[in-house]
Amino acid sequence: MKKNVLIIGGGGVAQVVAHKCAQNNDVLGQITLASRTQSKCDAIVKTVEEKGSMKVPGKIQTFALDALDIPATEELIYKTEAQIVINVGSAFINMSVMTACINTGVAYLDTAIHEEPDKICEEPPWYGNYEWTRKDEFAKAKTTAILGVGFDPGVVNAFARLAVDEYFDTVDSIDIIDINAGNHDRYFATNFDPEINFREFTGRVWSWQNRRWTKNKMFENKRTDNLPVVGEHTSYLTGHDEIHSLSKNLDVPNIRFWMGFGEHYITVFTVLNSLGLLSEQPVKTAEGLEVVPLKLVKAILPDPSSLAPNYTGKTCIGDLIKGQKDGKDKEIFIFNVADHKDAYEEVGSQGISYTAGVPPVAAALLIADGTWDIGTMANVEELPPRPFLNLLNQMGLPTCIRDEKGERQLTFS
Amino acid sequence: MKKNVLIIGGGGVAQVVAHKCAQNNDVLGQITLASRTQSKCDAIVKTVEEKGSMKVPGKIQTFALDALDIPATEELIYKTEAQIVINVGSAFINMSVMTACINTGVAYLDTAIHEEPDKICEEPPWYGNYEWTRKDEFAKAKTTAILGVGFDPGVVNAFARLAVDEYFDTVDSIDIIDINAGNHDRYFATNFDPEINFREFTGRVWSWQNRRWTKNKMFENKRTDNLPVVGEHTSYLTGHDEIHSLSKNLDVPNIRFWMGFGEHYITVFTVLNSLGLLSEQPVKTAEGLEVVPLKLVKAILPDPSSLAPNYTGKTCIGDLIKGQKDGKDKEIFIFNVADHKDAYEEVGSQGISYTAGVPPVAAALLIADGTWDIGTMANVEELPPRPFLNLLNQMGLPTCIRDEKGERQLTFS
Repeated sequence: MKKNVLIIGGGGVAQVVAHKCAQNNDVLGQITLASRTQSKCDAIVKTVEEKGSMKVPGKIQTFALDALDIPATEELIYKTEAQIVINVGSAFINMSVMTACINTGVAYLDTAIHEEPDKICEEPPWYGNYEWTRKDEFAKAKTTAILGVGFDPGVVNAFARLAVDEYFDTVDSIDIIDINAGNHDRYFATNFDPEINFREFTGRVWSWQNRRWTKNKMFENKRTDNLPVVGEHTSYLTGHDEIHSLSKNLDVPNIRFWMGFGEHYITVFTVLNSLGLLSEQPVKTAEGLEVVPLKLVKAILPDPSSLAPNYTGKTCIGDLIKGQKDGKDKEIFIFNVADHKDAYEEVGSQGISYTAGVPPVAAALLIADGTWDIGTMANVEELPPRPFLNLLNQMGLPTCIRDEKGERQLTFS
Repeated sequence: MKKNVLIIGGGGVAQVVAHKCAQNNDVLGQITLASRTQSKCDAIVKTVEEKGSMKVPGKIQTFALDALDIPATEELIYKTEAQIVINVGSAFINMSVMTACINTGVAYLDTAIHEEPDKICEEPPWYGNYEWTRKDEFAKAKTTAILGVGFDPGVVNAFARLAVDEYFDTVDSIDIIDINAGNHDRYFATNFDPEINFREFTGRVWSWQNRRWTKNKMFENKRTDNLPVVGEHTSYLTGHDEIHSLSKNLDVPNIRFWMGFGEHYITVFTVLNSLGLLSEQPVKTAEGLEVVPLKLVKAILPDPSSLAPNYTGKTCIGDLIKGQKDGKDKEIFIFNVADHKDAYEEVGSQGISYTAGVPPVAAALLIADGTWDIGTMANVEELPPRPFLNLLNQMGLPTCIRDEKGERQLTFS
């Protein structure tokens, strides 16, 4: 049994994590929020209080923390008696937070892969460049680290594992499709950190095809699907974290990720990218100031969490899986549909933050009760999917399937 | 008789000015180029030597100069014995350079209105906010200052004056139309300093209609004209310097400026402007760096002078003038057509720089021989247009007319 959670981060996902921890604080114990800007954490705690999210009376506190400062992070872990760290801060801090967790023997969870500020779309598999280099240290310290346990990566990895285990004899392809059919009232905004959002799309697009890494350009390949609830949408082959672990952990020759984009997003992206405004490399102005264009673009775009109050519509994210069962071709789509307005009403965040923030709390609960407290490092598809998907069914992210029998919710208990 | 020219600036227009001064150095004497970055001036001198532009053997030299430093500018004027300053540097230095000219009694020429970095599209008339406040000082010092003597403003002001004097009894409207029908090989570029280019379009659009200042938004009003040589083009009501002096100096109820834009320009502009990336106001990044978005956009866009080698096509800039003559309605279009490739072959610059850079040298020649050396401050329409347009006919910018008799070149000798 582990308890007391340290949430690192102060954005929209951190807010969802805080609310979901609060809703389960009988199990998870004390909740601490820490980020560079403490006031962001304070604002989150205020929403937890306003929504009355704490299940039982308990402690919820905030601290200022630069998570690149490993001793400071270790000190905060000791001070708060945290046994589980949920890292939903910037993508640049994973390796530092991991070191603090190894040194203190505390369970580690994150929802996105580590990145270095000056590098994008590195050589695959991405996890091999950073997280997996620490696997032996976690094992040696008998400490649990679950990588990429948001929705995608995360829940979609569990969907893939479930399908391989229970629905197919052989799987030919897994196409993960992420559609946000929501609308907000801004000219343009990204649904999570613009810096991380754009970094996904400005370099090469890696996919796993015919058991080999394949390189494409962004917006080079697209598909159109008629999806449950949200209807017909076009999505584009995109590089994404989960391909880099699923390709290693599952025996599937084709694993691709498709992200839905509207015309307007593509126009804005194309202009910014063509001009060099999405570059992670510094540029010098005529006045001699060194500026990373992407950092400025992040600064001028709306804070993703600010979209929440006026966000309407739904997301549909799932795995389209093709293969054979009992000698016959088979195709299923395992998916979740989330609603932006429902998310806002429950936890004050929009749907994209909701889908990313609920799963790490489900994982924390599985670490707390021992089910997933494996004492080493794993990606989600290496863990039993049923207890995780079962918890998510209860926590607001139900798993559904569309197959030859139609569409329905799945149960896992 | 005045001689020895100090050219302030190191961009594409400065290059044209340098070549045209060199082509007339028998009259204009020694040529000095000075800008913040001396190497830019050196590069220009190199092209003057390569093209063999010097008419007679003579001196051409360069200096580093921060033209906001008034004593340094005065010192350079004394040192180079310059009697004419052609200011084609940034739009932010006019007032400083003017002070240096008043203090040293040296003639002043520029091609664009003064701007303050943190202000755009100020209250009309723009000249009233800055340049005209110094008119008495120039008059008292018996020193000549000719404002806005590029093409537009500049030559188009002379066109307007010529039309009012010689072609009409009454003028109802002057519509200045600026079409660049050229093509370069870049995804996107501005034809002159991007910072100054965009600043023209991000605020209010002022025009003079029914003898009153009228306020519109950019791209709110457009017109399509079938123009000489370049054919049918759409242009948009735009705020521009010359309206702010013509409305004062000519008795014409409607004076408007129309700039041609392609769909692609409008798309890129709209994205950048809607996102706030064209703002002249600083923004703070998450890392705490203060950045003026427009300065970064300038830094990442191509240097306008770099477009020259691969620029093809023509520009057509002119005044469409409507009014009455001898009791009958009359309409004429006085215009110039310039060719990007011809400009590059002659002076190594593209056509937009050429049209802006030739006129101030014609004006310098008219100051040198006394014709325009008026010992006070004036806008171009306050000066006799014929000697100016006559010189331009010989210097590569012929004046043409389209009226009821067809299209033809005008002569002024």
